[in-house]
Amino acid sequence: MLRLRFVKSTLLSPNFLSISNFSPKPTSHSPLILKFKAQLQMGSSYTTSSPSSSKLLFRQLFERESCTYTYLLADVSHPDKPALLIDPVDRTVDRDLSLIKELGVKLVYAMNTHVHADHVTGTGLIKSKLPGVKSIISKASGSKADVLVEPGENIRFGDLFLEVRATPGHTLGCVTYVTGEGPDQPQPRMAFTGDVLLIRGCGRTDFQIFTLPKDTLIYPAHDYRGFTVSTVGEETQYNPRLTKDEEGFKDIMARSKTVISENDGRSSSCKYGLWDASAGFQSLMSLY
Amino acid sequence: MLRLRFVKSTLLSPNFLSISNFSPKPTSHSPLILKFKAQLQMGSSYTTSSPSSSKLLFRQLFERESCTYTYLLADVSHPDKPALLIDPVDRTVDRDLSLIKELGVKLVYAMNTHVHADHVTGTGLIKSKLPGVKSIISKASGSKADVLVEPGENIRFGDLFLEVRATPGHTLGCVTYVTGEGPDQPQPRMAFTGDVLLIRGCGRTDFQIFTLPKDTLIYPAHDYRGFTVSTVGEETQYNPRLTKDEEGFKDIMARSKTVISENDGRSSSCKYGLWDASAGFQSLMSLY
Repeated sequence: MLRLRFVKSTLLSPNFLSISNFSPKPTSHSPLILKFKAQLQMGSSYTTSSPSSSKLLFRQLFERESCTYTYLLADVSHPDKPALLIDPVDRTVDRDLSLIKELGVKLVYAMNTHVHADHVTGTGLIKSKLPGVKSIISKASGSKADVLVEPGENIRFGDLFLEVRATPGHTLGCVTYVTGEGPDQPQPRMAFTGDVLLIRGCGRTDFQIFTLPKDTLIYPAHDYRGFTVSTVGEETQYNPRLTKDEEGFKDIMARSKTVISENDGRSSSCKYGLWDASAGFQSLMSLY
Repeated sequence: MLRLRFVKSTLLSPNFLSISNFSPKPTSHSPLILKFKAQLQMGSSYTTSSPSSSKLLFRQLFERESCTYTYLLADVSHPDKPALLIDPVDRTVDRDLSLIKELGVKLVYAMNTHVHADHVTGTGLIKSKLPGVKSIISKASGSKADVLVEPGENIRFGDLFLEVRATPGHTLGCVTYVTGEGPDQPQPRMAFTGDVLLIRGCGRTDFQIFTLPKDTLIYPAHDYRGFTVSTVGEETQYNPRLTKDEEGFKDIMARSKTVISENDGRSSSCKYGLWDASAGFQSLMSLY
């Protein structure tokens, strides 16, 4: 079920879609889009692009060669200042640990959204340098880690927590970590989607992400075009994988190998997600 | 004068610097550092890393080849949703204008922090595609633009504004744009520093930046190591250019050509800032 949570101060004016300097481009009207456009009359997902919390320290870090994002989160209001890293990359472990030292936080978890050929984790290296750190991955991934998490579980660090959501489609064990719900948790919520959903790109659909409020911030594991963040609302409306009817969607996915290959040479990883994503599309559509 | 602004909920525990898993590394104690460390006992610059405002839409965008950051800011609570781009790059103009269209905001200003050989602006291309957009640059740059701004002036977009601060050191006309001060302006404040101050890197010192509250977010024009944001507090404490005494500082700057060349092949731009930065160091130190 889609939860609707709108901020009063961010109500849209009726001419939201006509203000731009551009003329509107034609789009196919899938059931999803029509429903989403109706929702747009009620509230906006675009008013706030940064999470707000007096407890949360948040840093987005980028590894240029693999175009991977690593995320540092810490509860700096807690005496221990516990911190975690999502999707650390081996090449940038020293940079990340140096930053953690400078910020005065204590790394307790090094966690991955998934295991994949193009996703070279730095978890092992971190554990060898900081033996107290525990690694985390989903049980469904079939990989080894100190803590194996399952959907519905919460990962606590200080007074903050991340929810584990199952988001298969790219690999069987893919999970998305979502910041907790509550008055002292970051607002808007933040979803660390791994490879399941990229910004405007090779989004492997999954209904579990699109049940989040549409102002939820989307932080993917990779970006090849220079985007750093998006929202559930934006991806629902503008991700090419989600703005077509089923035939159009399948057509895009069938051609995605070539497209991705031109962009970043990662044809295999995109192809890998093809069939599961197609099934995910059905799940997504059935919810709207 | 350094303004002190601390958030009550973010007070540091006394063992702030000893919590990390690392043993403390020795640092030289310049007057600046000693003063900063005393301030650290009173409050932290690290508690919030994202600006909060119900009005502001903010997006950080990255151009991989030149490692340039472009920033999109808009007042989405205003009926016109006026937006501006800071330091757009020619290669990514289409990406940026597409995003602006999708977000439903209206671009009114395309502005640059400075003019430099390694800084290929997309302003002209934007104006050719959207003739209503006005370009902005500092009067001191000697460049042409629709609006020439001077230090102390404010650039308004909707109910938000940016202050223009003179930050010479990299080029004569370099300015830093700082979000406004006031209850309805983003908190913490954000400083778009151009090339004057990079994160932990080739920071061309300038005292005007370090008079800002230390929780001010630093958004540079470039980053070569994957950092996306820093704070005045962090740079004051950890930027290698600012944590040495004057002799150490000069020594680093003298060797910076080689260091930068190894990192990113941009030796000329770093060398360019050498002498002015040295003068800036004196200004900085005299303030503390």
